[in-house]
Amino acid sequence: MAVTFINLFEVQAGRDEAFLALWQQVNAHMRTQPGYQSHQLHRALADGAPYRYANVAIWESADAWRAAHNDTFRQMVTRPEWQEYPSTPALYELVHTSSLPGGA
Amino acid sequence: MAVTFINLFEVQAGRDEAFLALWQQVNAHMRTQPGYQSHQLHRALADGAPYRYANVAIWESADAWRAAHNDTFRQMVTRPEWQEYPSTPALYELVHTSSLPGGA
Repeated sequence: MAVTFINLFEVQAGRDEAFLALWQQVNAHMRTQPGYQSHQLHRALADGAPYRYANVAIWESADAWRAAHNDTFRQMVTRPEWQEYPSTPALYELVHTSSLPGGA
Repeated sequence: MAVTFINLFEVQAGRDEAFLALWQQVNAHMRTQPGYQSHQLHRALADGAPYRYANVAIWESADAWRAAHNDTFRQMVTRPEWQEYPSTPALYELVHTSSLPGGA
């Protein structure tokens, strides 16, 4: 069963460039892992949003997602630079969806 | 510009049915509003996730999203039943995306 991984990041307004440089390193690695299907990284329109960034990624299965969190991943995310950006990650399943014919 | 509305809900495990009944009332209303394009409601796989539900909805514009929060909407979400389910809503723009050819 495909799963959706949602990760919410606390980032101060004005720190976009530094955050994105770090995040893209991790993302580039994850995209090469078996079972990765897609991701969409979102930035809040308002500076005061509790989570300035939200990544919504689709993986083939929870097992594939777990396996991708390997030594290379851990080396990346334990770098001290990441301490500036607390994250709230969780795996989800889709339970209700709808789109209009003309919708995205 | 299309915007993504992400709303995170705190729901106790075991309260899925009660939450979904309330949420679907609001969702059914929002889907009739001009500018609604799609939504995907996700439920966390683990009972301990900080946000058991996450809705990711696409709207044609921030203005359309704002206009949809009309009197009918307010009457629905000010019902006392909603106090059991704190929510963390924010509007986002897409900043980085990728999908594999075989991906979803």
